[in-house]
Amino acid sequence: MLGASGFAGGELLRLLSQHPGVEVVALGGGASAGRTLADVHRHLANTSWAGQELLPSEPVPAAASGAAFAFCALPNGASSRLAPELLNDGVRVVDLAGDFRLGAEAFAGWHGSDHPAPSWLGKAVYGLPERFREQVAGADLVANPGCFPTPVVLGLAPLLEAGLIESAHIVVDGKTGLSGAGRAASETTSFATGEESIRPYRLPRHQHTPEMERALELASGTTVSVSFVPHLVPAVRGVLVTCYARLVGATPTDALSEVLADRYSGEPFVRVLAPGEMADTKRVRGSNMCELQAVADPRTGTAIVVGAIDNLVKGAAGQAIQNFNRMSGLDETTGLPTIGVYP
Amino acid sequence: MLGASGFAGGELLRLLSQHPGVEVVALGGGASAGRTLADVHRHLANTSWAGQELLPSEPVPAAASGAAFAFCALPNGASSRLAPELLNDGVRVVDLAGDFRLGAEAFAGWHGSDHPAPSWLGKAVYGLPERFREQVAGADLVANPGCFPTPVVLGLAPLLEAGLIESAHIVVDGKTGLSGAGRAASETTSFATGEESIRPYRLPRHQHTPEMERALELASGTTVSVSFVPHLVPAVRGVLVTCYARLVGATPTDALSEVLADRYSGEPFVRVLAPGEMADTKRVRGSNMCELQAVADPRTGTAIVVGAIDNLVKGAAGQAIQNFNRMSGLDETTGLPTIGVYP
Amino acid sequence: MLGASGFAGGELLRLLSQHPGVEVVALGGGASAGRTLADVHRHLANTSWAGQELLPSEPVPAAASGAAFAFCALPNGASSRLAPELLNDGVRVVDLAGDFRLGAEAFAGWHGSDHPAPSWLGKAVYGLPERFREQVAGADLVANPGCFPTPVVLGLAPLLEAGLIESAHIVVDGKTGLSGAGRAASETTSFATGEESIRPYRLPRHQHTPEMERALELASGTTVSVSFVPHLVPAVRGVLVTCYARLVGATPTDALSEVLADRYSGEPFVRVLAPGEMADTKRVRGSNMCELQAVADPRTGTAIVVGAIDNLVKGAAGQAIQNFNRMSGLDETTGLPTIGVYP
Amino acid sequence: MLGASGFAGGELLRLLSQHPGVEVVALGGGASAGRTLADVHRHLANTSWAGQELLPSEPVPAAASGAAFAFCALPNGASSRLAPELLNDGVRVVDLAGDFRLGAEAFAGWHGSDHPAPSWLGKAVYGLPERFREQVAGADLVANPGCFPTPVVLGLAPLLEAGLIESAHIVVDGKTGLSGAGRAASETTSFATGEESIRPYRLPRHQHTPEMERALELASGTTVSVSFVPHLVPAVRGVLVTCYARLVGATPTDALSEVLADRYSGEPFVRVLAPGEMADTKRVRGSNMCELQAVADPRTGTAIVVGAIDNLVKGAAGQAIQNFNRMSGLDETTGLPTIGVYP
Repeated sequence: MLGASGFAGGELLRLLSQHPGVEVVALGGGASAGRTLADVHRHLANTSWAGQELLPSEPVPAAASGAAFAFCALPNGASSRLAPELLNDGVRVVDLAGDFRLGAEAFAGWHGSDHPAPSWLGKAVYGLPERFREQVAGADLVANPGCFPTPVVLGLAPLLEAGLIESAHIVVDGKTGLSGAGRAASETTSFATGEESIRPYRLPRHQHTPEMERALELASGTTVSVSFVPHLVPAVRGVLVTCYARLVGATPTDALSEVLADRYSGEPFVRVLAPGEMADTKRVRGSNMCELQAVADPRTGTAIVVGAIDNLVKGAAGQAIQNFNRMSGLDETTGLPTIGVYP
Repeated sequence: MLGASGFAGGELLRLLSQHPGVEVVALGGGASAGRTLADVHRHLANTSWAGQELLPSEPVPAAASGAAFAFCALPNGASSRLAPELLNDGVRVVDLAGDFRLGAEAFAGWHGSDHPAPSWLGKAVYGLPERFREQVAGADLVANPGCFPTPVVLGLAPLLEAGLIESAHIVVDGKTGLSGAGRAASETTSFATGEESIRPYRLPRHQHTPEMERALELASGTTVSVSFVPHLVPAVRGVLVTCYARLVGATPTDALSEVLADRYSGEPFVRVLAPGEMADTKRVRGSNMCELQAVADPRTGTAIVVGAIDNLVKGAAGQAIQNFNRMSGLDETTGLPTIGVYP
Repeated sequence: MLGASGFAGGELLRLLSQHPGVEVVALGGGASAGRTLADVHRHLANTSWAGQELLPSEPVPAAASGAAFAFCALPNGASSRLAPELLNDGVRVVDLAGDFRLGAEAFAGWHGSDHPAPSWLGKAVYGLPERFREQVAGADLVANPGCFPTPVVLGLAPLLEAGLIESAHIVVDGKTGLSGAGRAASETTSFATGEESIRPYRLPRHQHTPEMERALELASGTTVSVSFVPHLVPAVRGVLVTCYARLVGATPTDALSEVLADRYSGEPFVRVLAPGEMADTKRVRGSNMCELQAVADPRTGTAIVVGAIDNLVKGAAGQAIQNFNRMSGLDETTGLPTIGVYP
Repeated sequence: MLGASGFAGGELLRLLSQHPGVEVVALGGGASAGRTLADVHRHLANTSWAGQELLPSEPVPAAASGAAFAFCALPNGASSRLAPELLNDGVRVVDLAGDFRLGAEAFAGWHGSDHPAPSWLGKAVYGLPERFREQVAGADLVANPGCFPTPVVLGLAPLLEAGLIESAHIVVDGKTGLSGAGRAASETTSFATGEESIRPYRLPRHQHTPEMERALELASGTTVSVSFVPHLVPAVRGVLVTCYARLVGATPTDALSEVLADRYSGEPFVRVLAPGEMADTKRVRGSNMCELQAVADPRTGTAIVVGAIDNLVKGAAGQAIQNFNRMSGLDETTGLPTIGVYP
């Protein structure tokens, strides 16, 4: 694993400690190199890897190059440098950063420069198992989805496919806890700044916007336009997205809910709420579950879809393990909790 | 004052304790009747009214009927019963509930029954001083706006008037701290339920929807359609609204911000943020200030307007005092803080 | 299980959902009787018991009387009525309330009346496995310890036994999150009351005081006197106790830590921190771990012992399962997490 | 003012914005030099000083040297360098750091080196107005007390003077919100680290320990020994101290409370709670009030005194203004709120 020192890395290791099929051969941890895992993540002091020393992530440690799989939980930009090294050595990669989630054109348009590893970009599979399960199974490189796109795509794609909502003028209002900003200390993420603070950020150009548009297009076959505004609220974990789309006809709430319920029937990590139930990030905390709620507002002709996940689990580490399970031929649910730690 | 025992009542008394022009002659407090103010609101133990005993609110106490003004901070439904009694005795009323905020037709349509005091409803002035200052000055009955409509109307009305945004298909995504649900204990508002919880509520029929539509129509002269979803986030105070509207032309962020800045130049309680600045409920906490931020997203043709207030001050008690000041001929800012208690 | 509708009951079922050796035959849930488990605890919607209907707890349901074991997560006072019914039917009981934790005399002295089931009281075993493992194995009735006494007894008993601290004039300052007050809504536990609030409660006669004194006496063979003040702080889970005792000699920090480390070497659920490390409730959240930290302050001749647990796990449901495992002859760690959900 | 960029500096300016007798001539702000006040503290954008540019604090700005008074809200260590410059220029100083709070011997013993400005140290007055009001009035240099010592000294000194508690073996257990750690970002004070975390820090040698001992000795004329452990809890503002001392005789709660109530009768910023009431940091938030609660536990012979303040107001900026008012001959309460912003 590269990037073991951040929150996503710590969560990967927490979940893997209950996973029967994994041996950790190397931990890369940039600035924390030279310290033990137990020192960097003190809650992991009782794992079998507690005494393992973190290595520099760059250049890629030899042990990592010899592994069958690698999780890259690196900052955006680093994995497009390091993942190709691993891939060229035959290591199959689950990348948790945003580096391999867009098409070449959208990447260049959004970031202002060409992708540094275009051939691998072309081979990357978007790792939303509920939509792209078959492609994930055989992939060498899986681009694990972002925290906001995960519930947006799960919630909207079935309605787009069913022709129940319009693909233009979709609004996504996202709310996230502060762990989404990563482990590095900053005034933005300090307790004194964050408590009692509700505020938007990176408005109007968050990098998850083109990811949502692309993933919805892949999933539904239609060109989609999304206005997305993320907000920080005083929580640690949790992403809630509230999506507003124009209803095509006079579809009622029941019908919207039923489309989702049918589509995800049998999915272990998607819970479609009955009409009247409200999604809640707290219920899924610590678990790999996504809650989806659909409501029709006939008065204004609007479909409202709400999705809730734990950003560090279904929005990052849990989904990465779900992809890994699929790539390895294991049962997709291996090692992944479905019940949140509540309250 | 009727309804002194709730959060809005307590905040009114906190602010009035620093207001030079008010003598409190009677405190009505329903279920808390018979207890002293200091007992009901222990943080008010050092006010001059600390030892005053709360009276039943119904029937209206004789002392209240003899007052020049009354603040009604009663639950929805109670003030349409009690305010007319006061008004008929010549008491001018600022009503903090939703009872007098809609037109007769919208009231009946939304609540399913006719308004109990239609003649007073016709005379009520919507108490958003920045828009209806002149009417407030002479009013006998002021309907103090709801917490969500306040920043929505302040933010969108100037853009509607300037013809920069479309009046149809407006989306308002609201986030509020838990004090907005009132002081009564419930599982919904308990600490164990609320912490780490991001969740929508009363979807899709919150009573602030028709209030927003009507107030925007009054302010802009256009029929307006709003899809509104409120959310609870783990804070006590603070309302943030994120409004999405279709841009009429290719107006850039600077132009949107300038329209707001011009409109509110000289307003003591509206701060229009410069492009790039992000609104934040924490900065206005404890103050009567509203922060407004406007952003154009030319890629999708969307105007995004964000507004932040303290729901108990500009969204309730502070705005009520601002209206009272105007009705009394006092300086509108008397006794009202403009600087938040930060951090 | 009786008392399935509260927080401890929900946590028991969350943990049991990952426990291989348990079949739930009946769920008693007082005021929630008639509702399904998924309705009462919506985060448990994906357990196999989700559709099971809660029964009245009193009289004891027939299915419960036929079980091999019963967990009683009832309010204080109820289990001394209901547990004897179960016990007389041959059901072995783990009781999470305070009803069977004191001796007969202390019970009468503290509660002002004799114990209603004195013969069972005499047979009850205090269920702190790290101290009374052998007695637990054969017990019919285990009194599961309170959340505050658990880390206090684990932290102080070895130092008392070693003669390193005095048994008189011990001070215990406890801090707890608000889930400790239970699930019932009240002004005390509302979000608006709890956030930014640090406050003592039930001072100076909390019912955990005689429990600490008795358990320390059982564990160390000495009469012990404790002044205990509990506090509420703005968290959901977590109990931290800071214990102050007079040092007998000039024992340094290293020696205190070593006594604890030796005593708990090999214990799966006690982590003794190295000198300089600080205990933290957040690290153990969701797990059955107890962190212990010992410090000598030679300047004032004081030993300071800090203990941290998750009050719903090691302080309630997790410890109950640990006791059940021992009573059943299972490995004591079965189904119990040792790694907290962090951050 | 030197040190305007931190939390205490921001709070000083918030409070001074409502103070009629102050003109701010210079703002020193170290690392923020060159930025405007509104940029550094965005909630102060509506003060008259919003556009004022922060200057380097070192060397002392010329404008500051010409002022009549200076507030130094600098980090520990800086004010013993800079305050003497100001004092030598005839500026009277209120110092919010710990630099001038100890005697020369205790300073050297605790810090391991002699005080850099011993003659000014000898002249410094400990600025707890409720105890040292007369000395403050004439002082050139006032050492504003630390946040923890303020409620400890207010609570314990009268009981020591009255001979009701022993001066040896006093235990002080302190809990503070995270603003006490200052504005600089660090992992310790990040939201993800702080939420749901209850933990001790700087154990057993926090620099407020000798300050408490000295101030209690000055106030009571007795040598005092204190074991002090501070804790971080998930709040922004608020310090609660729980003090445990040996009762000399069989004094009941009523008598302890009465001694405090008599001593502070007429004090505007001390509220002694009636027996049975519990102190609460939330009630004093944003105000200069200190709540004190005294309880006797006859069973163990212990007096328990609990004190609650807002660490940024009575524990820092508010008390500094209270001292300034006294030094200036103004009414001591000028510009200082007594009512907290609740909830």
